[in-house]
Amino acid sequence: MSLLIAGTIGLDTIETPFGKKVDILGGSAIHASIAASFFNPVSILSVIGEDFSDEHLSFLSSLNIDSKALKRAAGKNFRWEGFYEYDMNQAHTKKTELNTLLDFDTKLPADLADAEYVFLANLDPDLQLEIIDQLKAPKFVAADTMNFWIENKRSSLHKLIRKVDYMLLNEGEARQLMDTPNLPLAGRRLLDLGAKGIIIKKGEHGALLFTRDSHFAVASYPQDSLVDPTGAGDSFAGGFIGYLAKTGNLCEENIRCAMVVGSVMASYNVEDFGPDRMRRLAKKEIEQRFEEFRKFSIFNPINM
Amino acid sequence: MSLLIAGTIGLDTIETPFGKKVDILGGSAIHASIAASFFNPVSILSVIGEDFSDEHLSFLSSLNIDSKALKRAAGKNFRWEGFYEYDMNQAHTKKTELNTLLDFDTKLPADLADAEYVFLANLDPDLQLEIIDQLKAPKFVAADTMNFWIENKRSSLHKLIRKVDYMLLNEGEARQLMDTPNLPLAGRRLLDLGAKGIIIKKGEHGALLFTRDSHFAVASYPQDSLVDPTGAGDSFAGGFIGYLAKTGNLCEENIRCAMVVGSVMASYNVEDFGPDRMRRLAKKEIEQRFEEFRKFSIFNPINM
Repeated sequence: MSLLIAGTIGLDTIETPFGKKVDILGGSAIHASIAASFFNPVSILSVIGEDFSDEHLSFLSSLNIDSKALKRAAGKNFRWEGFYEYDMNQAHTKKTELNTLLDFDTKLPADLADAEYVFLANLDPDLQLEIIDQLKAPKFVAADTMNFWIENKRSSLHKLIRKVDYMLLNEGEARQLMDTPNLPLAGRRLLDLGAKGIIIKKGEHGALLFTRDSHFAVASYPQDSLVDPTGAGDSFAGGFIGYLAKTGNLCEENIRCAMVVGSVMASYNVEDFGPDRMRRLAKKEIEQRFEEFRKFSIFNPINM
Repeated sequence: MSLLIAGTIGLDTIETPFGKKVDILGGSAIHASIAASFFNPVSILSVIGEDFSDEHLSFLSSLNIDSKALKRAAGKNFRWEGFYEYDMNQAHTKKTELNTLLDFDTKLPADLADAEYVFLANLDPDLQLEIIDQLKAPKFVAADTMNFWIENKRSSLHKLIRKVDYMLLNEGEARQLMDTPNLPLAGRRLLDLGAKGIIIKKGEHGALLFTRDSHFAVASYPQDSLVDPTGAGDSFAGGFIGYLAKTGNLCEENIRCAMVVGSVMASYNVEDFGPDRMRRLAKKEIEQRFEEFRKFSIFNPINM
């Protein structure tokens, strides 16, 4: 199935207890597209600056990520600089330079308006809505967001949640947006806003799915070689949407599998800086880790 | 199988956003024993004060919790007073009065030294060790602890972990004791101290099991009617050990079931103040919720 992913492309400078990397490939659309590309070809909608290297473009193209909706704008590329301390659950932002991100042009080439599977990675919700409005007959649209938009564009965000099939948020965002510390309650309130499914990403604690009829919980991989958590949530989303686009099956059972696939992709992404682990990831490793997830999640009543 | 549970018996004064209760039945041994009693008769080893009411004793006896190892000491009963704010994940202690807890006598009556299944709920690790030393041929010993002992009796705690089969800790305690923010790493380091299994309780995020050969994760129940979290961890432990004592099966598959049973008991315990929800809990409700856990944890690969 055709798959469109929109979001940011950044040049990230990241420091963790394991080292520092300067101006490496990053951004929400990058992490999501790379993870998705293991399952389905991707069209990426984003903006890059004059200083975005052709090497990165070749890398994307080698993964079957087409860049016909990738516009190069005048000026420097969007940059994010941050660090993680000893407890790597929390990213600390040192600097954000929006640069060409301010020139994000949501206009879709004609054939991309036909995209069947769409993931709107973290981006201004008004831009996410502009993209949705151009879609002709999407089969499944999911979107992500961040605390900045909750604080500054809450009503656009509510409108977005009404228009998507699935909304993905992290734990803190779900609590903040629905004004409750209770995640199941936040999940149900988000469903009441209009989405068919709500996925709450909890980092090291896994992810939850809420639909009107059911609930699903996937644990995270017992990761003791965490090097750089940047992009874990986007890798989750990319694995999730990529697997759905590949299988073209939206039954709940397959949605659950897609969440486990997302967790697998996130667990690999954090093993090295930026997308470096993904550069050397084999399809077989994905299958092996999926099987590990299955094994550490099963239990059967013996007798009660 | 015979089951011994040792720990504190308290009179708790608890305030949550849902109300306030004064001098209600509480303490680690109480919550654990009540949860365990749904599966197996329990002998409780603890100390009570002169002001501990006979009504509470009748309640315990009605649940098949025998109190022949329960000593009444001179003076007032152990008391804890605490509150929970809007985010009920964190208990705030207002006052702790040890009172008769200082007279805890670990001497086991002869027949209880034969106990096969033993849970040493939170208590001074030196007292926990004294109890272990009296056991003649235990089949399975598990222990719990708290941050106070990590800060004040670390070497006794290390000795305890060497002597038990399973150690249960909460998330913060595991990180603190093993000096790492990474839970899988903390789990493996705890195993290196000598226990066969480590269970890390994560409250709303479920629980993890680490053994030398495997890993298991159970999610928590999507609880949106949380009234009082006091005793959730002890209820988990009680359900866990009670189910193991009942089934007498220590294979990993059954240990996993026991963790789900523990999660079920914890999920009920938090629905009302102190042990009030347990007073009206039916066996059938336990089975129903176990089945709900199974349903929201399963996934099967459709195609990768």
